[in-house]
Amino acid sequence: MPKIVVDVMPKAELLDPQGKAVAGALARLGNTAFSDVRVGKRFELTVEGAVDAEVLASVRAIADDLLSNGVIEDVVDITVLDESGAHSGAGASGALA
Amino acid sequence: MPKIVVDVMPKAELLDPQGKAVAGALARLGNTAFSDVRVGKRFELTVEGAVDAEVLASVRAIADDLLSNGVIEDVVDITVLDESGAHSGAGASGALA
Repeated sequence: MPKIVVDVMPKAELLDPQGKAVAGALARLGNTAFSDVRVGKRFELTVEGAVDAEVLASVRAIADDLLSNGVIEDVVDITVLDESGAHSGAGASGALA
Repeated sequence: MPKIVVDVMPKAELLDPQGKAVAGALARLGNTAFSDVRVGKRFELTVEGAVDAEVLASVRAIADDLLSNGVIEDVVDITVLDESGAHSGAGASGALA
């Protein structure tokens, strides 16, 4: 069954303590190639049946209302994965980025 | 500066209570199009300089050792985003899927 992936990240202007902790750990372990780390959430919604415009619209509403807190988070990407798990449907990907 | 995105999801055979809670909320709100929801993590690592094979190898090691718990989680995707935020580098995407 197709899956829809919703990516939610903390807003760029907000401090992300979890990301700072990871960045600090990387620096302590000697990885100096990374200047910043941010940690967000990835939701995988398994869709019953086909992904049509109605389902995508409902996922956009769910992403804004239920899966993210608009005060501190942004929905950065909504992507449709086909059965094999490969990315598909560029029309859906990045629509809200 | 380029970003590398690491996606970590709970293993398919494990119960995901957070995902079950979201799925239950969706059902209560009348969204019956979705049969399952799983919640994972999305890490965005900002790279100082260019993304070369060495940086990608180090990200793969970091993803396995630091960003995911191999007992309960899988690294499902490692993707390079260019400056504009668009996906690029299919060679990196899905390399560990």
